[in-house]
Amino acid sequence: MEKLRVVKIGGNVINKPAKLSAFLKLFSSYEGKQILVHGGGRTATELASKLSISTEMINGRRVTNSEMLDVCKMVYGGLINKDIVAQLQSIGCNAIGLSGADANFLLSDLKKKTPIDYGYIGIPRNDSFPINTLKALLNEGIAPVFCALTHDGNGQILNTNADTIASTIAIGASSAYEVELVYCFEKQGVLLDANDDSTVINKLNTTYYNELVDKQLIFEGMLPKLDNCFSALNKGVSRVYIKHADAINTQQKGTLITIS
Amino acid sequence: MEKLRVVKIGGNVINKPAKLSAFLKLFSSYEGKQILVHGGGRTATELASKLSISTEMINGRRVTNSEMLDVCKMVYGGLINKDIVAQLQSIGCNAIGLSGADANFLLSDLKKKTPIDYGYIGIPRNDSFPINTLKALLNEGIAPVFCALTHDGNGQILNTNADTIASTIAIGASSAYEVELVYCFEKQGVLLDANDDSTVINKLNTTYYNELVDKQLIFEGMLPKLDNCFSALNKGVSRVYIKHADAINTQQKGTLITIS
Repeated sequence: MEKLRVVKIGGNVINKPAKLSAFLKLFSSYEGKQILVHGGGRTATELASKLSISTEMINGRRVTNSEMLDVCKMVYGGLINKDIVAQLQSIGCNAIGLSGADANFLLSDLKKKTPIDYGYIGIPRNDSFPINTLKALLNEGIAPVFCALTHDGNGQILNTNADTIASTIAIGASSAYEVELVYCFEKQGVLLDANDDSTVINKLNTTYYNELVDKQLIFEGMLPKLDNCFSALNKGVSRVYIKHADAINTQQKGTLITIS
Repeated sequence: MEKLRVVKIGGNVINKPAKLSAFLKLFSSYEGKQILVHGGGRTATELASKLSISTEMINGRRVTNSEMLDVCKMVYGGLINKDIVAQLQSIGCNAIGLSGADANFLLSDLKKKTPIDYGYIGIPRNDSFPINTLKALLNEGIAPVFCALTHDGNGQILNTNADTIASTIAIGASSAYEVELVYCFEKQGVLLDANDDSTVINKLNTTYYNELVDKQLIFEGMLPKLDNCFSALNKGVSRVYIKHADAINTQQKGTLITIS
């Protein structure tokens, strides 16, 4: 099968123009077929603040009422997505900016309201990926750039975790491609000591992961990220990495996630 | 050649949820290949006001400084575009929301700064339309939905008149399709008396147009709109209408624009 790379870029890179620009240059210099997924939570919080909309986070997830959802549509789907696409176009990468509503790429169910009501949050389904549309775009030499929005099929846009969007797309694409999923952020990979970049774990399998969770050495945002990694591997994705944004085109760096 | 319809929907319809919903139902019930183009100026003005950004209009055109440009990116590319796409998806139309930066659809030049400096305004070029990308999307049964943004190829998004975007796309598509361009708004067509819907002109050719302009019976927003109509007809578009949003699927209504 032909190779496809799905890259998710984290908010701490998006937020800094020089870092984002350097990352996009690396992304555009890659020769194969690829997809980019981005968040943008910090910018959403900034806009919400300017509009006197208060931001509530529970367990690192944004509580999304109707007003906050409009902020997400504007910041994720408009401001950040269009700026990234324009930048990529300027350096020779034929990007197309998309939400999960566009071409029906990501259908979601509304997240259950118990025990915590997070509001308009989508949980993407794994059973409806439009692989032929993806192939049509990739065959035109186009690189899709997804923001953190999906839809419910009934006209409602839903705020959706960008890590989950990346794994859902990687899984959906794996019916037609040999998919590599790369989570990029501002650290060297999964670290034994979150404050020491030299403690990067080169290879993390299920057994080791469970061991580290038991020892409470993996916590906060890294737990759902790794759940997405293992979910992707269990559902057809070939390779999953967590690595520094500077290292996306470098094979030896970062943390390789494996089942066994 | 195969037929393609390019529909531009005006801001006074977009702004009213019930009218927009009725229009989108008509749009989605059309059987052939089609493209939608939308504005959204009033919503942009509302958001700007909430952010204490003052809106300056000269000759009906928005002066777009850096802050206002971000508002346009958010409202046109995010809020309105994604809501329209989600609504169309919910009624069986496989829409994909795009700006002119996406897939490099609309390259623009920055509008000249003399005699009036309008700021970040794009004037689309007519020489670089990616017809193969359009064909790939339409052949997948997808309806592109364009917002009023283009880019300059150097990483800069530009605010761009939606009427001009519609005519530029119609002209670009006419190399591969028999294109009908329909400008839809809240009136029955080009009116002899702007306040009387019964005075709709059924057919308007160049000679009659010049006559009406001389008599100052056509003015304000209708002048650039008609310039876009004649430009489209002169550059390969087969048919151009100006009509009420309720009448997009009705052949006999509205104003048919013709060269001779």
